[in-house]
Amino acid sequence: MTEPAPVHASGVDHERLTSQLRFILETDKLKRILRRNLLVDGSRRENDAEHSWHLALIARVFAEHAPPGTDIDHVVQLLLVHDIVEIDAGDTFVYDSLMSRSQAERERAAADRLYALLPKDQADHMRGLWEEFEARETAEARFAKAVDRLAPMLANWHTDGGTWVQYGVSKAQVMEKVRIISEGSDALGSYATALIDDAERRGYFTRSKASGRGAPTTPR
Amino acid sequence: MTEPAPVHASGVDHERLTSQLRFILETDKLKRILRRNLLVDGSRRENDAEHSWHLALIARVFAEHAPPGTDIDHVVQLLLVHDIVEIDAGDTFVYDSLMSRSQAERERAAADRLYALLPKDQADHMRGLWEEFEARETAEARFAKAVDRLAPMLANWHTDGGTWVQYGVSKAQVMEKVRIISEGSDALGSYATALIDDAERRGYFTRSKASGRGAPTTPR
Repeated sequence: MTEPAPVHASGVDHERLTSQLRFILETDKLKRILRRNLLVDGSRRENDAEHSWHLALIARVFAEHAPPGTDIDHVVQLLLVHDIVEIDAGDTFVYDSLMSRSQAERERAAADRLYALLPKDQADHMRGLWEEFEARETAEARFAKAVDRLAPMLANWHTDGGTWVQYGVSKAQVMEKVRIISEGSDALGSYATALIDDAERRGYFTRSKASGRGAPTTPR
Repeated sequence: MTEPAPVHASGVDHERLTSQLRFILETDKLKRILRRNLLVDGSRRENDAEHSWHLALIARVFAEHAPPGTDIDHVVQLLLVHDIVEIDAGDTFVYDSLMSRSQAERERAAADRLYALLPKDQADHMRGLWEEFEARETAEARFAKAVDRLAPMLANWHTDGGTWVQYGVSKAQVMEKVRIISEGSDALGSYATALIDDAERRGYFTRSKASGRGAPTTPR
């Protein structure tokens, strides 16, 4: 772990600031966690940090498509922290059923370590945001998750099918994710459905009844 | 420019959604705009999108160091959009005095094009956020700018002086940026001062009275 510079700022609670800096330095690692999907221009895989920025911006741009009364500032808070656990747990591809089984446990252990770097009050608050996102029980968490599911669909559509083609994903598998989008936003769910119908016409999905060509982490 | 998929979502204002999607697809390019500074682990240069995510998170973690009454949700809004103009204008290195002279004009032209992709009401709002950030007249803008100036100092300290060493930056030049940090936050200004004093002891700054080894874009 990267330790903060051994310096003392006058008039500042040193222990508290040091804890905050440890968390800030550690979360820099999110910039090196690669996701499966490509950037919209297809040039390279996206990392979790830039993905989180884009989701926060998209949530603001799409704010009017959230159910009335949804607190978009809170949605942004959820999105800023939602992938931090992947620093330890790694990115789990949404169509990788094998890795998805151990995902919850791996991510909980990651949250135990990473959020504990912060002063206790902030650790509790930030971890609470992550748990809220995962539970999808609030309108904010459902909308945040909707945006998180829609963004890679946009990237896939714009890169000739992207991970759908690469990993042999079926339309039925994608439609499970569309359902999650619809739960967060009628409008975004409607758009995702239209997008997936178009992607099907373009032949981006595998026609086999099996669930794709297997998990991407499985040796082939 | 990347055009959104030619699909119609039922029950959604098509023109408005298409404008929003154009902006979302265009801002994906921020992930390919490279800054001068490296990641904290020194592995590669940082891009503007992941930088923006980290600043938004840092602003939340450091919220207690902002002046009382500062609206951190608004600070986060400013930070999410603050670098979008660099999609067209490019990153201007803070110690590059030649490029800094044309920076305002280049960024205004970029804002004219990029924000206009959005529906008018959203374009006005988002562009207003960027202008507020640049003007540094509100507590929120000053705190956002403080975080924006502090983050690369952390990266430089953790990469053996980073861009300070690479471009022959003097302590006096860095202290101008520390002043901007102090204007946004006493505590962060105090910390930055202690960090820069330590960096000087480590020999990270050029001792010459000239303003560094010249702009990084100047052929050498």
